[in-house]
Amino acid sequence: MLRRSERIAVLAKYLNDYPSRLFSLSFFVELLGVAKSTVSEDLSLIRESWRSKGLGDLVTVPGASGGVKYVPCLSEEAIDRLLKDLAGQLADSHRILPGGFIYMSDIIGDPVITEQVGQIFANMFSETQADYVVTIATKGIPLAIATARALNLTTVIIRNDNKVTEGSSVSLNYITSSRTIRTMSLSRRALKEGARVLFIDDFMKAGSTAQGVVKLVKEFGAEVVGTGFLVTTAQPEEKMITDYHALLTLEKVDEALAQVVINPAPKKQVK
Amino acid sequence: MLRRSERIAVLAKYLNDYPSRLFSLSFFVELLGVAKSTVSEDLSLIRESWRSKGLGDLVTVPGASGGVKYVPCLSEEAIDRLLKDLAGQLADSHRILPGGFIYMSDIIGDPVITEQVGQIFANMFSETQADYVVTIATKGIPLAIATARALNLTTVIIRNDNKVTEGSSVSLNYITSSRTIRTMSLSRRALKEGARVLFIDDFMKAGSTAQGVVKLVKEFGAEVVGTGFLVTTAQPEEKMITDYHALLTLEKVDEALAQVVINPAPKKQVK
Repeated sequence: MLRRSERIAVLAKYLNDYPSRLFSLSFFVELLGVAKSTVSEDLSLIRESWRSKGLGDLVTVPGASGGVKYVPCLSEEAIDRLLKDLAGQLADSHRILPGGFIYMSDIIGDPVITEQVGQIFANMFSETQADYVVTIATKGIPLAIATARALNLTTVIIRNDNKVTEGSSVSLNYITSSRTIRTMSLSRRALKEGARVLFIDDFMKAGSTAQGVVKLVKEFGAEVVGTGFLVTTAQPEEKMITDYHALLTLEKVDEALAQVVINPAPKKQVK
Repeated sequence: MLRRSERIAVLAKYLNDYPSRLFSLSFFVELLGVAKSTVSEDLSLIRESWRSKGLGDLVTVPGASGGVKYVPCLSEEAIDRLLKDLAGQLADSHRILPGGFIYMSDIIGDPVITEQVGQIFANMFSETQADYVVTIATKGIPLAIATARALNLTTVIIRNDNKVTEGSSVSLNYITSSRTIRTMSLSRRALKEGARVLFIDDFMKAGSTAQGVVKLVKEFGAEVVGTGFLVTTAQPEEKMITDYHALLTLEKVDEALAQVVINPAPKKQVK
């Protein structure tokens, strides 16, 4: 039989391993071989200590089919710190690519940064009752996966090609802001009719891709109920979609002066 | 001042949030406001209770630059259970696609499955001293990310196109088993010279893609030191690469009979 602090170590691990998954109290009663009231006390203790250190929340769902789940949640200070740090990293002139683009694959490939960005999006969209997190290949994928993990949802990846391994697909042609025609394609099996989806991506300029995603999702009888970008450009101010959240705003890239201006997005957008 | 069980809740959360990251004891001393000896005792207690429930290990690194890290580790039973369950799901005849392919994007998009697969690969390759986890777009990405998270490494994604947002790239043409020529491309900034990389992907048939990845990585003066696939086909028996690990073996897909035969790979491969 485990002592209280040993039980806490086990409970904390289970809850933290499966964000947003509802665990019944009986699951823990069986796992630990103690009474329900003991499990409840242990959970309260974890909730209080995590809250006191800004490590997220435990939410109790009452009733017969209820239980407890861990909801990841970054504090305002942690979000501010992360976004300022990211803006600083992205403003490094060595990241400037020909055409005024910014290299950011290394940042998106960093598990610690991605995990935190996913938690921010998960908090933003926790009320949307989404069923899936959708993204479009390739750079949005790590951010979408982290968001989906925090919300305990499946990630769905829209592709730029039509692969035999996806089976019958729905495709949509769209015109990018650089006036080229591209195709996006999604397996018919990927989304259930009536599904509510979050769209997460790394970058938006004019929003033609995002608008394409909204339309493609509609073809499935599904609906985009939340949209989040790591970075959007300040220009053009008018985007082709209106309802979105961004974490960072790219004001300007000046190739000649080797200068990048990028800032955390205004608070009202970060909600 | 936190009580022991409250400290345990906080420590467990930090360690579990950052797999394979080395925390110095002084970090926790400052965080919790207690003596080093107290932190050591708390950590031993977490280690014992996690071990007793098969929840992974805490590894202590001695010396001035030492500390403690959490190493995710699935038990043999958990691995067996997962692979049998995956084989069962993938054998469902509804997954058969025209051409004898199997739909598996939904499984790869599931955060719980992906996380576990990533931990298996992380354990397999924990001794390789890898610096990056490399994959090729698109379906291997979630598995590579989960492996990288477990090992605290950056994920690097090889693309099938050459995008302006990647800057100067190294490209390589290769011939697939269906005799078509394809291109794979990786940003010159993505890998440091001399780097050791793990290659993780969802599927291998003849191994032409994997062989291409090995060659492309060499172009960077880097080296593939471990290769893992979720599924490999039983045929052809001779692959174009020899040193790899697979979790599942796809024996046969019979479209006419609507039959799939897929099994956990022989133990010697799972190591």
